[in-house]
Amino acid sequence: MLKKIHIRTKTHEEARDITDEVQQAVAESGVREGFVVIYIPHDAAAVSIHRTLAEADAPQLDRMLDAVNPDRETPEYTKAAFVAPTEVGVVVDGRMVLGDGQRVYFYEFDGPQDRVVYAYVGA
Amino acid sequence: MLKKIHIRTKTHEEARDITDEVQQAVAESGVREGFVVIYIPHDAAAVSIHRTLAEADAPQLDRMLDAVNPDRETPEYTKAAFVAPTEVGVVVDGRMVLGDGQRVYFYEFDGPQDRVVYAYVGA
Amino acid sequence: MLKKIHIRTKTHEEARDITDEVQQAVAESGVREGFVVIYIPHDAAAVSIHRTLAEADAPQLDRMLDAVNPDRETPEYTKAAFVAPTEVGVVVDGRMVLGDGQRVYFYEFDGPQDRVVYAYVGA
Repeated sequence: MLKKIHIRTKTHEEARDITDEVQQAVAESGVREGFVVIYIPHDAAAVSIHRTLAEADAPQLDRMLDAVNPDRETPEYTKAAFVAPTEVGVVVDGRMVLGDGQRVYFYEFDGPQDRVVYAYVGA
Repeated sequence: MLKKIHIRTKTHEEARDITDEVQQAVAESGVREGFVVIYIPHDAAAVSIHRTLAEADAPQLDRMLDAVNPDRETPEYTKAAFVAPTEVGVVVDGRMVLGDGQRVYFYEFDGPQDRVVYAYVGA
Repeated sequence: MLKKIHIRTKTHEEARDITDEVQQAVAESGVREGFVVIYIPHDAAAVSIHRTLAEADAPQLDRMLDAVNPDRETPEYTKAAFVAPTEVGVVVDGRMVLGDGQRVYFYEFDGPQDRVVYAYVGA
């Protein structure tokens, strides 16, 4: 089952927690055991699953994305390519499996814009 | 359905647009709504979905892959590992969903060689 | 079919070859042609498919992960996010397709710990 999640980003760059929206898509699919593909159809946005940004020791993808560029001004399309447009998870007992502290983040690199996330849930 | 796409790379390093070949594999599968796994079975090659390289503001993965190495001479196998051997997309109306400007690229890091790309289309 | 692979890491950071465990999960699934999703439900661990570490010219993800951080002390959660929690492969003739020299590695960034790997095999 395919679900489209609509997002309105608010700033030029942001990391938006979309875990709840993805879990809702999985729940609506009725799949109990399977997988979920999360795809971002935008060349200046991306998706990543990592430790929650709510903690002080959160991952700092933004700092690293600038650090890897010799000019220290990494273009939005390169950032999106490095973070990647796809993540895939597994579904157990009707929910996407996430470890303690793991969350799904939508990365905006050229906002604010209206954005779409595709979630395909299969079994 | 599984399809093998055959490629002959022409230079030591190159980024080859394989979007048309992937879309053809999706079309031949007959899947209308589902997903597509793109896998590169080579340790010195990779796949990435990002903004078209036909534009002046294209992503510069090659520059970044060198920048992340202290020696500024990143080995081919490390480049392949960083770009990754897999991408996964979603299929809607019989086509892989790609946003404006998004294309699928095969990255060669040790050519020229005969290469293979696997495309598995499921639903 | 979903399989849980249990791992006990032994040091603070390590790359563990889990190719055999993944191939066993694929074999047990009975799937002859399909795909396999490998998911790591931990915020300080990751998975990557790349050239074997048994050779002298092996990829050096650890060096690169430190190089991309301005402080040269990349936190464990950022490393895990960059390497990523997911890989997806294709299954042909009852085995995950891997090129010559390609292996599947579990990356531990905060061990030693008891860890789990999910392998979902579908068709």
